[in-house]
Amino acid sequence: MTPFKLTDELLAEIEQLIESRRDTELVNLMEDIHYADIAEIINELNEDEATYLIKLLESDKTSDVLTELDEDVREYILNNLSAKEIAEELDELDTDDAADIIGELPNEIIQEVISEIEDREHAKDIVDLLRYDENSAGGLMAKELVKVRESWDVLKCVKEMRAQAENVTRVHSIYVVDDEDKLKGRLSLKDLLTTSTRTHISEVYIPKVDSVNVNQKPEEVAKIMSKYDLEAIPVVDEIGRLVGRITIDDIVDVIREEADKDYQMAAGISQDVEADDSIWVLTRARLPWLFLGLVGGIGAAGIMGGFEELISKHAVLFFFTPLIAAMAGNVGVQSSAIVVQGLANDDLKGSVGNRLIKEMLLALLNGTILALILLLFTWLWKGDFLTSLSICLSLVAVILVAGFIGTFIPLFLHKRGIDPAIATGPFITTSNDIFGILIYFSIAKMVLGI
Amino acid sequence: MTPFKLTDELLAEIEQLIESRRDTELVNLMEDIHYADIAEIINELNEDEATYLIKLLESDKTSDVLTELDEDVREYILNNLSAKEIAEELDELDTDDAADIIGELPNEIIQEVISEIEDREHAKDIVDLLRYDENSAGGLMAKELVKVRESWDVLKCVKEMRAQAENVTRVHSIYVVDDEDKLKGRLSLKDLLTTSTRTHISEVYIPKVDSVNVNQKPEEVAKIMSKYDLEAIPVVDEIGRLVGRITIDDIVDVIREEADKDYQMAAGISQDVEADDSIWVLTRARLPWLFLGLVGGIGAAGIMGGFEELISKHAVLFFFTPLIAAMAGNVGVQSSAIVVQGLANDDLKGSVGNRLIKEMLLALLNGTILALILLLFTWLWKGDFLTSLSICLSLVAVILVAGFIGTFIPLFLHKRGIDPAIATGPFITTSNDIFGILIYFSIAKMVLGI
Repeated sequence: MTPFKLTDELLAEIEQLIESRRDTELVNLMEDIHYADIAEIINELNEDEATYLIKLLESDKTSDVLTELDEDVREYILNNLSAKEIAEELDELDTDDAADIIGELPNEIIQEVISEIEDREHAKDIVDLLRYDENSAGGLMAKELVKVRESWDVLKCVKEMRAQAENVTRVHSIYVVDDEDKLKGRLSLKDLLTTSTRTHISEVYIPKVDSVNVNQKPEEVAKIMSKYDLEAIPVVDEIGRLVGRITIDDIVDVIREEADKDYQMAAGISQDVEADDSIWVLTRARLPWLFLGLVGGIGAAGIMGGFEELISKHAVLFFFTPLIAAMAGNVGVQSSAIVVQGLANDDLKGSVGNRLIKEMLLALLNGTILALILLLFTWLWKGDFLTSLSICLSLVAVILVAGFIGTFIPLFLHKRGIDPAIATGPFITTSNDIFGILIYFSIAKMVLGI
Repeated sequence: MTPFKLTDELLAEIEQLIESRRDTELVNLMEDIHYADIAEIINELNEDEATYLIKLLESDKTSDVLTELDEDVREYILNNLSAKEIAEELDELDTDDAADIIGELPNEIIQEVISEIEDREHAKDIVDLLRYDENSAGGLMAKELVKVRESWDVLKCVKEMRAQAENVTRVHSIYVVDDEDKLKGRLSLKDLLTTSTRTHISEVYIPKVDSVNVNQKPEEVAKIMSKYDLEAIPVVDEIGRLVGRITIDDIVDVIREEADKDYQMAAGISQDVEADDSIWVLTRARLPWLFLGLVGGIGAAGIMGGFEELISKHAVLFFFTPLIAAMAGNVGVQSSAIVVQGLANDDLKGSVGNRLIKEMLLALLNGTILALILLLFTWLWKGDFLTSLSICLSLVAVILVAGFIGTFIPLFLHKRGIDPAIATGPFITTSNDIFGILIYFSIAKMVLGI
């Protein structure tokens, strides 16, 4: 298969069918389309069309569609549904998805929707999940899981499992708890099937199972699950009671979002925005970093103003300020990106000192190679060896300092518990621009003896 | 649980145990450590220690450790193992992991290792996998899967499944094929268990299953599996025969690598490097982009040289070149990052024209706000309205052009089938620097009438 591609023709056809209210044809057409793709279609429809289509289709299909929609589209669709209609959708969903959706509703409606949910157990689980911080394992987990008590015998266990499995889309593991619901271990299906029905679970279960705490950060859960190749992990509360489980598909989303966020930060975009957000949202995400760049540029102008007397005698120096600033920026971004990525992937080893020494050596190597090329070029161009020399010495110095700043700042922020990703992109570029220009003119002044 | 953290103490203890050859203690200590964590430990040991530890532990544990090691560490460990020892490790691994490892060996050794693998079926599967391009679904898939023929009855099916499941770590789906091995659909375990043993599979299977082709790109497979929340997907060859399956854990790695690559590209690092690679590898990855910056800087110097007469009269203009260049770079990176990310996540909708118009409006809005701030500042500082005006007009123009280039180039590359990520980072920064400076001085010349 190839990923579904929404064509203009298909979209036009659907809009046509909606307009002329040809419901049977619409339902038939949607029959063969995956819910994730229907969500893609609905994202492109207008509010009336979208609501019409959602109300037309069965809730076992539309509930999944809802989870995949853009947040703003989902918001106006839910606005057009009654509390009872929303409750019907939630009844079809796993508790984690239901809680995510209900969490976006206004408080006064949440109450009403919850009271309309038919399956009261399900409603209770959803309410439980609402209590957890979105940015924690608790906010990520679902209540659907299969658990058995160690005091049960195999016969009872199989009977209970059958009932529980009804509500679980995919059984990854059978968890074993004690009478206080504390997680004790897991059960292998094979062992269960090859043991006499009178045997107690306590005799056959595997007393070792990885779990995470409800308060752990999603990124940490993602790290654990991807490092240990887990497809599901149980979640326990502060006193070790089994309260939910997280599956790998939720983790895939966390990894994607995490990567997107770091990428945007490095590009100077400060919130999680998408290309299709409004101009206003995009401006708010981009302007602060540009403003930082503006302040940096004004700073650089101030510094250059202090070296005004150099201009009259060595105008050529000024021609190379963009080069010096650009190189400082580039080296700084390279160094900080390597450190930020190393921290994110947990593969940064050794001490801060060693890391800095390595980065300095690297900067010296790169800087010397580039400076020699530049020396040759400027000397040939202007024929003034001393000026060329001062430009090239500055280049090496600037690259060294930029490498140092780019390495040190993210490491320092990380030590302080601050996300080092904020020190990439415009932040590093701007500070390196300023330092670079200051170093450049100071060295030039010294070499040229003015 | 929290992710394992390798302490200096633990490492020292292990090195001590290895040195004094206290094998039993070593084995006991390693017993409780996950293979992914043992790999982390071995990455830090020297060649002799690492080889000693691998030879000491059982191959059912070390085989998994091998798959997790850094490539260079794995290389020297394999160099120290005989063909027979390597074959023993591969015997324990799934075919995809075994093929990945064997693919790193020199050709003359591959032959020998394959001939030493005890399980001949396993060896044949590994050889099959070696034929596929690493950068394809075929290179990602494993041969381990459970498949049944539509012509079988339930009884035969269950018997065969049991034998097959022995080799499969986790059964995600039961695939149904015809007598020519062509993928026809899948079987639900529930249906299988509730049907009479004489029923033919052809009567009970679900004739619909998502699959990918061996030649599809890993990124495309990743997109499909994460969009449709699949935990495993079957892989078919050109004529529809079932040849393997891909599981979600391999996809998690693809997503991570993909994100890392784009991030590095944006930061001006041209290969997939890690913070702990050698200085030489890091230089090769970074120098080309720095060289590009150098060439750009020389270009900028050349352009400024052409405006030399402006210097004597309006030196202040020169003080703001770093600001103009930095803003051009920042806006360009922001625009291109949004486009590259939108393309990667497939959420870029609408035509190129609309995208450009939106980006221009955004640039105009940001540019005007920033230019007004700058106008106020420079006017107050130097008291020369005309100079201030020319600086600020340039700023708006430069931001517009930078936004245009940053949006257009990645879209253009993508249309041409080139990875748009190469147009982020230093590439955009450098070209925007040059354009920015050219625009700046041209506008200044016009406004100031020189």
